[in-house]
Amino acid sequence: MQLRVRFAETDQMRIAHHAAHVVWLEAARVEWLRERGLRYRDLEDEGVSLAVAGLSVQYRAAARFDDLLDIDVRLLEARSRRLRFGYRIERVDGADRATLALAETRHVPTDASGRAVRLPGEWLTAMRGWLEPGPAAPDV
Amino acid sequence: MQLRVRFAETDQMRIAHHAAHVVWLEAARVEWLRERGLRYRDLEDEGVSLAVAGLSVQYRAAARFDDLLDIDVRLLEARSRRLRFGYRIERVDGADRATLALAETRHVPTDASGRAVRLPGEWLTAMRGWLEPGPAAPDV
Amino acid sequence: MQLRVRFAETDQMRIAHHAAHVVWLEAARVEWLRERGLRYRDLEDEGVSLAVAGLSVQYRAAARFDDLLDIDVRLLEARSRRLRFGYRIERVDGADRATLALAETRHVPTDASGRAVRLPGEWLTAMRGWLEPGPAAPDV
Amino acid sequence: MQLRVRFAETDQMRIAHHAAHVVWLEAARVEWLRERGLRYRDLEDEGVSLAVAGLSVQYRAAARFDDLLDIDVRLLEARSRRLRFGYRIERVDGADRATLALAETRHVPTDASGRAVRLPGEWLTAMRGWLEPGPAAPDV
Repeated sequence: MQLRVRFAETDQMRIAHHAAHVVWLEAARVEWLRERGLRYRDLEDEGVSLAVAGLSVQYRAAARFDDLLDIDVRLLEARSRRLRFGYRIERVDGADRATLALAETRHVPTDASGRAVRLPGEWLTAMRGWLEPGPAAPDV
Repeated sequence: MQLRVRFAETDQMRIAHHAAHVVWLEAARVEWLRERGLRYRDLEDEGVSLAVAGLSVQYRAAARFDDLLDIDVRLLEARSRRLRFGYRIERVDGADRATLALAETRHVPTDASGRAVRLPGEWLTAMRGWLEPGPAAPDV
Repeated sequence: MQLRVRFAETDQMRIAHHAAHVVWLEAARVEWLRERGLRYRDLEDEGVSLAVAGLSVQYRAAARFDDLLDIDVRLLEARSRRLRFGYRIERVDGADRATLALAETRHVPTDASGRAVRLPGEWLTAMRGWLEPGPAAPDV
Repeated sequence: MQLRVRFAETDQMRIAHHAAHVVWLEAARVEWLRERGLRYRDLEDEGVSLAVAGLSVQYRAAARFDDLLDIDVRLLEARSRRLRFGYRIERVDGADRATLALAETRHVPTDASGRAVRLPGEWLTAMRGWLEPGPAAPDV
């Protein structure tokens, strides 16, 4: 999943603000699902959300305005009450790639009122088929 | 440091989006410094920034629109090339308080071009006097 | 209503990004209502939202990180299907005040599904009592 | 220029927050320039910014999470000290298109310190060649 750093995402250090990365991770998760034939919108329409319960990011190098980024997403853990994703954010510049950040998010399926629920069976089955070995959580 | 959850910070789960917490942590750091007589703006004017190099957040309960939040900040580590802060975000409702999130950030002093530098001596000395024992990093 | 410009709200021009002002206007509306004994949260809980249907902002001077801002809100028009607010954003620096922006928003009461509805009678009556003469819409 | 509404851009009305549109307009301007062979990043590197001096948006219909949007940009006015762009934000759903918002922004070229300057001649010449007749400012 590729995206460009928006001007609004920069701060006065002339780099992308560190909270922007958190938004990019989410956008990358949504596209990762879409590539597998699932729309997160549909899951929400069924009344299930994947609430973020944990987040860690290791920032290695700055992202700058207009940089083209590539976000690699991996599903590290898939249980009925717990999902865990790993991410690598890279800057793409022609043939060059530089790792800007590593991250991990942990999710809990919830219903519309925010209560923890089990992930619907078909989603869980699908998810398990997409598990990928990944690096350990970033050292924050 | 207290703040109110803004409407713009909510998402369609009807809770504050998890990236908003990251912005609140930063605002709380700035106020924590101000209470100690330092303005982060002055540090930046001297050409030194405290770049965020690591971030971890454990989300325990949702923050909602218009909730009044109290953010407790502690300086956990103060070295010339590394600062570490711990945070507790609580919802305040009259006499009741509920912990919504625990977090930690790690910082590297940088110059205006983003290169790692040593924290100016007077800042480091002051920081060391403000160290507080704190809980271990949240289990993300 | 006073607030401080957050670091996350700056951009690489070293000023507050122009979209931040839009968020501040909303926060100021919510506080304006609270000062009059109404919580916007309660209106939403009754199933009524004040959807933004129009927005104009004239930016006169930049807001910078850590600036203390004062936002003056006036209700310019109150009809069952149309509300209009005017705003003046000022920077407060001791006794000095400088106008940074003028703005106006137009709102349509909607139900939870987004359909236009009439503003509940008690809200409309209250609103009418708070009408204030204000300047014409900013010249954008 | 197309983009997808991000989850983080929604609010508890279950629609994209009205400040998100302002960020989209900016992203669309940057792409509009890129399609014409100019990178806004290069202009900034030359020390010239196109500060936003005026903004108006007319919101006609809600944008929702995951909607695919198409933003049409037109340069309405190009003078050495004043640029004006018009926008139409549409939702694209297969062959269907619906107008969600009309907008206009006015810009003043500034130097790095925020002072108004003249637009560099080569930029102004290029800009004049891209002027397009457009609709009048949206009725906010």
